[in-house]
Amino acid sequence: MKVRLTTERWLPAVSWLRGYDRSNFTGDLFAALIVTLMLIPQSLAYAMLAGLPPQIGLYASIAPLIAYAAFGSSRTLSVGPVAVVSLMTAAAAGKIAGSGSASYVEAALVLALLSGVVLLAMAVLRLGFLATFLSHPVISGFITAVAVLIAASQLKHLLGVDAEGDTLIQLSPALIEAAPRANLPTVAIGLIATVFLFWARHGLKPLLLRFNVRERIADSLAKAGPVAAIIATTLVVALADLREQGVHVVGSVPAGLPPLSLPRFDSTAWAQLLPAAALISLIGFVESISVAQTLAARRRQRVDANKELVGLGAANVAAAITSGYPVTGGFARSVVNFDAGARTQLASVFTAAGIALVAVLFTPLFRNLPQAALAATIIVSVLSLIDLETVRHTWRYSRSDFSAMAATIVVVLVVGIEAGILAGVTLSIVLYLWRTSRPHIAIVGQVPGTEHFRNVERHSVITSPAVLSVRVDESLYFADARYLEDWLYGEVARRPDIRHVVLVCAAVNYIDASALDSLEVILDRLKQAGVTLHLSEVKGPVLDRLQRSDFLQHLTGSVFMSQHQAMSTLDPEITARADAAPAQVQLSRETAR
Amino acid sequence: MKVRLTTERWLPAVSWLRGYDRSNFTGDLFAALIVTLMLIPQSLAYAMLAGLPPQIGLYASIAPLIAYAAFGSSRTLSVGPVAVVSLMTAAAAGKIAGSGSASYVEAALVLALLSGVVLLAMAVLRLGFLATFLSHPVISGFITAVAVLIAASQLKHLLGVDAEGDTLIQLSPALIEAAPRANLPTVAIGLIATVFLFWARHGLKPLLLRFNVRERIADSLAKAGPVAAIIATTLVVALADLREQGVHVVGSVPAGLPPLSLPRFDSTAWAQLLPAAALISLIGFVESISVAQTLAARRRQRVDANKELVGLGAANVAAAITSGYPVTGGFARSVVNFDAGARTQLASVFTAAGIALVAVLFTPLFRNLPQAALAATIIVSVLSLIDLETVRHTWRYSRSDFSAMAATIVVVLVVGIEAGILAGVTLSIVLYLWRTSRPHIAIVGQVPGTEHFRNVERHSVITSPAVLSVRVDESLYFADARYLEDWLYGEVARRPDIRHVVLVCAAVNYIDASALDSLEVILDRLKQAGVTLHLSEVKGPVLDRLQRSDFLQHLTGSVFMSQHQAMSTLDPEITARADAAPAQVQLSRETAR
Repeated sequence: MKVRLTTERWLPAVSWLRGYDRSNFTGDLFAALIVTLMLIPQSLAYAMLAGLPPQIGLYASIAPLIAYAAFGSSRTLSVGPVAVVSLMTAAAAGKIAGSGSASYVEAALVLALLSGVVLLAMAVLRLGFLATFLSHPVISGFITAVAVLIAASQLKHLLGVDAEGDTLIQLSPALIEAAPRANLPTVAIGLIATVFLFWARHGLKPLLLRFNVRERIADSLAKAGPVAAIIATTLVVALADLREQGVHVVGSVPAGLPPLSLPRFDSTAWAQLLPAAALISLIGFVESISVAQTLAARRRQRVDANKELVGLGAANVAAAITSGYPVTGGFARSVVNFDAGARTQLASVFTAAGIALVAVLFTPLFRNLPQAALAATIIVSVLSLIDLETVRHTWRYSRSDFSAMAATIVVVLVVGIEAGILAGVTLSIVLYLWRTSRPHIAIVGQVPGTEHFRNVERHSVITSPAVLSVRVDESLYFADARYLEDWLYGEVARRPDIRHVVLVCAAVNYIDASALDSLEVILDRLKQAGVTLHLSEVKGPVLDRLQRSDFLQHLTGSVFMSQHQAMSTLDPEITARADAAPAQVQLSRETAR
Repeated sequence: MKVRLTTERWLPAVSWLRGYDRSNFTGDLFAALIVTLMLIPQSLAYAMLAGLPPQIGLYASIAPLIAYAAFGSSRTLSVGPVAVVSLMTAAAAGKIAGSGSASYVEAALVLALLSGVVLLAMAVLRLGFLATFLSHPVISGFITAVAVLIAASQLKHLLGVDAEGDTLIQLSPALIEAAPRANLPTVAIGLIATVFLFWARHGLKPLLLRFNVRERIADSLAKAGPVAAIIATTLVVALADLREQGVHVVGSVPAGLPPLSLPRFDSTAWAQLLPAAALISLIGFVESISVAQTLAARRRQRVDANKELVGLGAANVAAAITSGYPVTGGFARSVVNFDAGARTQLASVFTAAGIALVAVLFTPLFRNLPQAALAATIIVSVLSLIDLETVRHTWRYSRSDFSAMAATIVVVLVVGIEAGILAGVTLSIVLYLWRTSRPHIAIVGQVPGTEHFRNVERHSVITSPAVLSVRVDESLYFADARYLEDWLYGEVARRPDIRHVVLVCAAVNYIDASALDSLEVILDRLKQAGVTLHLSEVKGPVLDRLQRSDFLQHLTGSVFMSQHQAMSTLDPEITARADAAPAQVQLSRETAR
């Protein structure tokens, strides 16, 4: 029993393999068929986007799928090359080798291996929480900006020209300069394919439904748009002999299963690639887990973040040893897999078998496949990632979230991918710290006829001239400790009659060492001014921690269980008067504390 | 009137110059005398520590003091070269030029200029709050580690050997290797000076007091220890002709006022020095403002962080144009200045005049001053900065604060100064975010006989089987949003009878865009499970912000003013029973919420 539990823990596949039945099998097989058809053009196109030979895209869609099937926790996630990670791979590998060279291909392998290791290390060290530091606006801005970059990078294939550049600033002039040299047949193929794919995405399904085609079949046919596009354009190129006219094609792709590979160890190059690999892991993980969670929720299943790390790590290691490049869970293909009826990861295993079959038997068919058609499939698929709606919503909802998002977008487009994500994360953390560094602080007084204390600015409450009761609505830590110090000195200086200060700690969940130092300083300065410092409503864990320091021994006043107890001790007369006053209705509105 | 107010705003000196009287003058003059005596050995020693010619130390103690006197807001802060900033200058300048070379001296000037500009920019952009990101444990660990580095770097002067290195890892073997070549007369001078200075610091004052010397004079005499030490050792070197025996001396120091200077613009070098300059500014500002605040509080004066930035910025610009190097407010000298009776910044102006006099007339006296004696003054003064007590306290109080401190210390000693502070700041921010990313979440129930709701695990409260009331004790933001999602799914999955979830938002001060996304997802998934989501006790500003999004339109349930109102609407029967139950005493203990 124990053995089985442990096996399940590390090999989630065991749990769904038990009880696998015929209906599961049918669902998985059909889904695999659809996803395979979808993956053929995608894997060739994303390999092109990553600057890698086309077969690398196929290889990355075989072993990684099987590795994820064994170790991943999502039942329907479909792993493989995806657009964002492909561009990140190109940017990282391009820094150490020329696109398409042997050392470039090797760099992509190293990136896959390092990503795998980083993901597995995150699983072992339980560092999955690091992904939460990528706030949604930053991720959303990042994906929008990368989608724009990707679309821009594919324009050269639509035009049939050369134009290199990692940022929009580099790409735009290169494209404008090269545009007059565009190859007309290429432009024609590219434009027609793009228009067709847009239509297939938005107009085909409604049309089929109008012809009484069943919804599920209409869906699948609409998804097969890219396959139709590459078949049609390949035929046109072959029949009209457009290669002679300068149309770039995929060309000869070696047939066969992925050769085994192991990237050669080179400390300098690996060290140079590590930050990019870490970023690829993090972005890949975030993208993948949100897809996995969305799908799992639809069937009331749960996804374990740590198992996801293991699954994705295994998939990337598998990519590294089978001549692939970094992979992650893709949104579009996972949704297709799910909608086509996949029940378990066996669908992915069947998909891997399908792609392997293609790699062994059908590569000669890609000889006349025009690059412009692949570029069209990339452009149409990434344009759906550009999410201006969220930009607009974020602008309306919060300027600080918007500025983190805007910084990410602008820096990705102008400076680069890594700088962009770094700028976004840094800005969102700084803005968060800045916000909490100026916590809401309220002077409170007793609500007549009750034992409750509320903000003097929002309620008609009773206060004592000798006692200043202050409620801080935030934990006390390094970023806000000095603010409290300054605030308190200001208030005490303005009120010469004050003899006691009571800090109401009901909202203080933590006091860190910096804040403790500040409290010591506050205590000291108040003492010199003849003012006693008290605490009230200190939470249990906070009090336990304070007892590990000398602060409570130095404290000039007392620690009161409740603010009411504090006031009845420090100013019994006023408290008695407040207790006896008629209760006010207002209290029930606890909202405005 | 308006003009005067504006003048005062930018030139705080105006406010204390008005009403300046004779007693102020006496205090300032006496303090200036003591501080000048203290500054002579210190400025020579810190220039040596910074790897600069001795006169640079004197120059940095003239114009910057006057600039700070005009623009700074502290009345008693004494500005000039300090140990930590001197070592940081050496580390930064050492990266682009050989110690003592012309371009090294130039680099120090550039550092001063850039620090000045950074400080002034922080003042204009109101970025003083950035300093709060340096948590106390990180600063304390940083200063302790730098003090150890400084002491280690001076050992070579005590031994009279050459041993270079920026980290303890580089210095230790170099010192051990060089130790056998130590120069005996140098070792003798260094040891005797060190022992004498330790004794002067701790044993001299009690001794003088026992001989009925007046306290203030005893204090001043004890502070004059370093001056006595350098006079005595200089005489010994001169009389015994120890230069012949290989004792290194300060040698000839050019006489005269500081020559004007303006660092040559060199974009590469400036860009390389900018991060170090920014760090010097930040550390200098933190060190300086804590001294200033401590002293101001003793006399019920206030220090304005922004004016401090202007004052320190002006002081550094002054250093840059008068052949100095980066300066800041020093702890020891400011305390001496204060204790000796300084009332206003005129004390610093007098001090500057005193040092200028020394630079013009007395530099020949330093010819035979042994470097070992200067090293001894540095070592004795920095050893007091090593604060193991705080390390111990922090360990006891909080492991996470301790680990940020330990990381700072270890990385400073092993890798370097900048890496150390970066490691400390990063770790303290990550640990803080990690802590808030797992907020305290409580299921709450009604306290019988009251309208209050408390944690079911800590109180005997009444709950409804159909309604799950959840209180989150933290603002909702990118780091904790996903945690709430996971927590909520887990709880709802465990309770099949739940029809309603109420999020009690009394402790939620902010909901950022990431958390809003999470709430939308939670809403959606609960809806699919047939569970309605409600909010209660939402604070005014949070509700205002939510109204800028579509969330409230999507909300399946309602927003209730109070949790009691929510419960009496969602489960009137249970609520009526709870309302009618006899009140329990327990409630008054609001502490354990």
